[in-house]
Amino acid sequence: MPLTNRQLIYTNPPKAAIDPSLNGTGTFTLKTTTFPDDVPLKDNQVLVRIHYLALEPAMRQWLTAKRSYIAPVEVGSVMRGQSIAQILRVSPALASTYKAGEWVAAHSGWQEYAILPAKAIEKITIPAGCQPTDALSVLGMTGLTAYFGMTEVGQPRRGDTVVVSGAAGATGMVAGQIARIKGAKRVIGIAGSADKCRFLREELGFDAAINYRDADWRKQLKEATPDYIDVYYDNVGGEILDACLFRAAKGARFVICGAISQYNVEKPQGPKNYLMVISQRITMRGFIVFDYADKYAAALRELGTWLSQGKIKRKEHIVKGGLETTPQELINLFNGVNTGKMMVEVVPESEAIKVENAKL
Amino acid sequence: MPLTNRQLIYTNPPKAAIDPSLNGTGTFTLKTTTFPDDVPLKDNQVLVRIHYLALEPAMRQWLTAKRSYIAPVEVGSVMRGQSIAQILRVSPALASTYKAGEWVAAHSGWQEYAILPAKAIEKITIPAGCQPTDALSVLGMTGLTAYFGMTEVGQPRRGDTVVVSGAAGATGMVAGQIARIKGAKRVIGIAGSADKCRFLREELGFDAAINYRDADWRKQLKEATPDYIDVYYDNVGGEILDACLFRAAKGARFVICGAISQYNVEKPQGPKNYLMVISQRITMRGFIVFDYADKYAAALRELGTWLSQGKIKRKEHIVKGGLETTPQELINLFNGVNTGKMMVEVVPESEAIKVENAKL
Repeated sequence: MPLTNRQLIYTNPPKAAIDPSLNGTGTFTLKTTTFPDDVPLKDNQVLVRIHYLALEPAMRQWLTAKRSYIAPVEVGSVMRGQSIAQILRVSPALASTYKAGEWVAAHSGWQEYAILPAKAIEKITIPAGCQPTDALSVLGMTGLTAYFGMTEVGQPRRGDTVVVSGAAGATGMVAGQIARIKGAKRVIGIAGSADKCRFLREELGFDAAINYRDADWRKQLKEATPDYIDVYYDNVGGEILDACLFRAAKGARFVICGAISQYNVEKPQGPKNYLMVISQRITMRGFIVFDYADKYAAALRELGTWLSQGKIKRKEHIVKGGLETTPQELINLFNGVNTGKMMVEVVPESEAIKVENAKL
Repeated sequence: MPLTNRQLIYTNPPKAAIDPSLNGTGTFTLKTTTFPDDVPLKDNQVLVRIHYLALEPAMRQWLTAKRSYIAPVEVGSVMRGQSIAQILRVSPALASTYKAGEWVAAHSGWQEYAILPAKAIEKITIPAGCQPTDALSVLGMTGLTAYFGMTEVGQPRRGDTVVVSGAAGATGMVAGQIARIKGAKRVIGIAGSADKCRFLREELGFDAAINYRDADWRKQLKEATPDYIDVYYDNVGGEILDACLFRAAKGARFVICGAISQYNVEKPQGPKNYLMVISQRITMRGFIVFDYADKYAAALRELGTWLSQGKIKRKEHIVKGGLETTPQELINLFNGVNTGKMMVEVVPESEAIKVENAKL
């Protein structure tokens, strides 16, 4: 039987914002192909069906950033992205390692089916109290990014004041919770709505949460940081980074993880208060999670323990629109519609193939 | 006999550029006072006559920067500044420590005479081959700033490519020479004239020097950094910092020492390429020389040795205009008229009091 595969092809590099139209004039094009479901697999390959696609702010950088940490997505190829996928078929050579029906985290790109080499997939191991989609958030690259950014770059010390921007986003909320685990005295989140702020305070136990859409958010930030800011974990850049530079304590560590406010503008703004770096002896340091690959396993064990124990709480924002909504949902991510990890449900779990002991 | 003292009083905080007029509408006002030359001195005081005033870019920051590393100069007070001064008279309590006729480095401010507490002056000790005005440049705060910025923050390693901006300025030229001493493979200076660049290459032995007023300076920078930039010592900020961010090697250290291009503008520009901090895992770190006070003595010994041995070469730019030219000369410093340490000769050495064994 032929499988109909729908794919989102990167077509037109955006100058500023992503264009969601899929008719050939937008950033991505929807392409339909078919292949027989018994398509031959090479020795190291598996055939998977994608169920959940993870969306990340960094995707915008993958399209057009120059001299970036990763090669840009090539025009004409399937858009890069990670997913939770189910294995449909395994090459004989891999039969002892993977089984049909198994769930994996896959570097599959934005499509419904994919033939992938084994190195592009990873088994999902679920600690007690955890769930498979955690592999795209707390127990995936998102959680690892928060973990290494906070513990290795930010290095909060007992008694520190830690501020996280994009705090209701997938990375930010984990970063803030890790700061608390590491003994920070005050953990403050900056986010884009009253609901997000309530979530940070009431669900995650942040000491304060500031809605940057409030007219007086700078004043709120000042009041929330009476001893200034020792560690600032930045996901947003722009005016919020500037305001935090102005509130930096002497010797502050600024973790530069992302700059979601700057990815979709033609002329990014630098932090105009960066001279505070001199007067307050600030260290601003960028990092890429890949550099810590040799420590992933240990970090995932620790994150899994914290998640099981409830010291870290998860939050997912799963959109049920199918593959073709993905470009618009990426735009929505930049507009901040989500609290927690944003994912697109490509195919509901109810359509998964049924295999004994392979429940998602 | 009464002494006529002329002073430059900080009068009108500038919005952007300093206004050199001294008639009351400018940034500073010239004030003339008199006091008897036998004015009584308190136990810990000396009376000094100022001969050379040091000018530094940071002076602009001392006027209006908020949350800076040092309290702003108070409106109505003598402008802050360091000088080479001669002791005219010593309180009896200090007679065993200081002698009339001795030369000192003094926190005297912009005036011709000053009554100072002992803690505001420092004896000048001159290693072989050195000279008293070195105490305002290589063997003073300038040299110490270059020393700690390069060795403690930049930490060049053998084989590194090191770029210094404001490289023909007093701090930059010492920083570049220290990078070479520390084993950098390539030392590249960025400066504002062909003459300065020739000086850096021919007199100081920099591997390359780039005149940022050349139309193709970015291309020159690219060509001079085939292995990218491991250490960037920034004195200027603005477009040059941006260009160097774009040429940063993975893991580069960016020493943020100053930002002379941004001090006199109403709305400073942040580095718009700062997202390279993420993709190249750059550490941008600011510092203030005061934090290394407990290491000054050892650093000065090392700087003195290097200066005596010719491993560091000095360069002074002494303006002979008298006290009242100082505001205009500070503006000239921002315009880059100087190669090396900029000083104003307030009183020529020929007018110094003659005391046995106290030659400047």
